[in-house]
Amino acid sequence: MEMAKRSFPLSKVYGLLEPGPVVMVTTAAGVKMNIMTMSWHTMLDFDPPLVGCVISNRNYTFGILKKTRECVLNIPTAELAKQVVACGNTSGRKVDKFKTFGLTPAAASDVKAPLIDECYANLECRVVDTKMVAKYNFFILEVLKAWIDPSKKAPRTIHHLGRGAFMVAGVTIKLPSKMK
Amino acid sequence: MEMAKRSFPLSKVYGLLEPGPVVMVTTAAGVKMNIMTMSWHTMLDFDPPLVGCVISNRNYTFGILKKTRECVLNIPTAELAKQVVACGNTSGRKVDKFKTFGLTPAAASDVKAPLIDECYANLECRVVDTKMVAKYNFFILEVLKAWIDPSKKAPRTIHHLGRGAFMVAGVTIKLPSKMK
Repeated sequence: MEMAKRSFPLSKVYGLLEPGPVVMVTTAAGVKMNIMTMSWHTMLDFDPPLVGCVISNRNYTFGILKKTRECVLNIPTAELAKQVVACGNTSGRKVDKFKTFGLTPAAASDVKAPLIDECYANLECRVVDTKMVAKYNFFILEVLKAWIDPSKKAPRTIHHLGRGAFMVAGVTIKLPSKMK
Repeated sequence: MEMAKRSFPLSKVYGLLEPGPVVMVTTAAGVKMNIMTMSWHTMLDFDPPLVGCVISNRNYTFGILKKTRECVLNIPTAELAKQVVACGNTSGRKVDKFKTFGLTPAAASDVKAPLIDECYANLECRVVDTKMVAKYNFFILEVLKAWIDPSKKAPRTIHHLGRGAFMVAGVTIKLPSKMK
């Protein structure tokens, strides 16, 4: 990893995905890398972290994920909003999204899919359950390795509201809680 | 409905849940109503809206939902943060959360579970698939009816970051997009 990122504990990954940020899913089919934009995901378990996500069978990523069973969930911040939308509006069948949108692939440690260097966090994932794919396009992923940019203390994640509108993460409040 | 809420198109429900707000799940076991706090949910389909969510088998709500197959997903804003945490830190086995935390139940139209009047949006749901419950505590819900408070133009939803920390929805940005 050439990024200034550090390894992030798997037991804390839920705190990155629970708030519902848009993520950029990267895959690799041989040397051909792709990116898709995704908002339909949820945590399913804490540690090892399991993530459920919907990837439509109309997306180029669907076939690659089924075949390679590997991807990276890259979490962008507001600075990348244009690239997020651009990746959502184009297909990897026609466009090399890394090149076209000026994003930098970096080698992952546990999967062949690339990390997006510009994203503040990256979750290397393996597909562990495809029983819900046929009916709901719902893949279950295990996070194998997580990376975070420690300099981003309050990442301005973006949260899709539909049709190109995004809520940008605001202030953080803290309440006494026994909840994990 | 005594609330100043209007019916909300089912085709637009995804825009309420995609950004990942904490929701308060209400159920009814006969006359006994309950509330639980939940962050592990995702859209699965647009219209009719399907929602997948994790409700732990340790939660009082789990048994009620399995039996009644009905619930309401109530979306709170920052004003309700204390009640959200309080509902997460207590069990309906011991506490009447509506009474204890000063929340107001309102009659739903299509299910017996109550709406939480103070929440800015309410989604009446029926359980439509329990195949993933045994392994992942993952329920699939169909939204039958949606309500929204039309006066809340930019609802300050709250998004759990772990251990009582919440990100409060910030500004909204809009980009040209072909994405739904």
